[in-house]
Amino acid sequence: MGDFLELAARRQSCRSFTGERVEREKLTKCVEAARLAPSGCNGQPWSFVVVDAPDKAAQVAKCAQVVGESNKFTGKAGAFIVVLEEHAVLNPALRKMLDSQIFAKGDIGGAVVSICIEAAELGIGTCVIGLYDRESLTKILNLPVEQRFGALIAVGYPTDETIRPKIRKPLEEIVRYV
Amino acid sequence: MGDFLELAARRQSCRSFTGERVEREKLTKCVEAARLAPSGCNGQPWSFVVVDAPDKAAQVAKCAQVVGESNKFTGKAGAFIVVLEEHAVLNPALRKMLDSQIFAKGDIGGAVVSICIEAAELGIGTCVIGLYDRESLTKILNLPVEQRFGALIAVGYPTDETIRPKIRKPLEEIVRYV
Repeated sequence: MGDFLELAARRQSCRSFTGERVEREKLTKCVEAARLAPSGCNGQPWSFVVVDAPDKAAQVAKCAQVVGESNKFTGKAGAFIVVLEEHAVLNPALRKMLDSQIFAKGDIGGAVVSICIEAAELGIGTCVIGLYDRESLTKILNLPVEQRFGALIAVGYPTDETIRPKIRKPLEEIVRYV
Repeated sequence: MGDFLELAARRQSCRSFTGERVEREKLTKCVEAARLAPSGCNGQPWSFVVVDAPDKAAQVAKCAQVVGESNKFTGKAGAFIVVLEEHAVLNPALRKMLDSQIFAKGDIGGAVVSICIEAAELGIGTCVIGLYDRESLTKILNLPVEQRFGALIAVGYPTDETIRPKIRKPLEEIVRYV
């Protein structure tokens, strides 16, 4: 086995892409990593749209550029993976009393990290875009107006493969043992 | 590098533990994997309580057994990792208009999967407990009443290391390309 901690340290948000296309086989491996992720009651509350056609990717990039100048870099992404939130079927005992989507946001968070880690293993950079134009994205992807989004991930080859030191709270500040 | 997809396939929910204690060094590696996980605006909305003292673990196991008989297996967990949701400091532009915790549930979902994957690499089983007695857990861990929980993860050595086939929707059902 490899070293997952080393891989987790190599995964970093990439904000400078070369503009090259990303091979569909690699994008599919990223989705496969998400498919294998755990979810509450195995509800799998997700589906994925891989946007790799250059004209569509350019349109999606525009959707990612709604907040100031900070996401202009998405114009050079080779592809996007759009994670859609889908209905989760919970266990019979739980679905009597809980909203079907109670675990969905957390489950999707795990799927998103799985995508980013698999991409890092393949030498591909990712950046999860927090805010984006959901209305335009709905139209571009021909989705129903009621579609819920999980995440928008920009994907591409990085212009610089240097691994930056991670800025994180130190371990001793965030963990205690009892 | 190893093969992350192979590791993701080896990660599975473990519902039968040997009762052995889990080495603290390994538990800390699991938390380290979570610490490296991405989060919105790098807000890191998490902290971790590692419960490895047998008497405390037994108390926490009781908190995991609130829904029917299904979580009795937690009585044999070697430890628990409790993920707490903490305040996230967003970027100045975003925190003017967004709730600080808008990304927290997804971020914690990514941290939880990172813990479970690192555990799988170390040969340790995990099971994320969806429902638990938060009131009792708050008291057992001496937390403030307003503390928000992110996740409760049972951790331990599996009695059976066989990897079960994963039950998942097939790839072609959950992905499309545009």
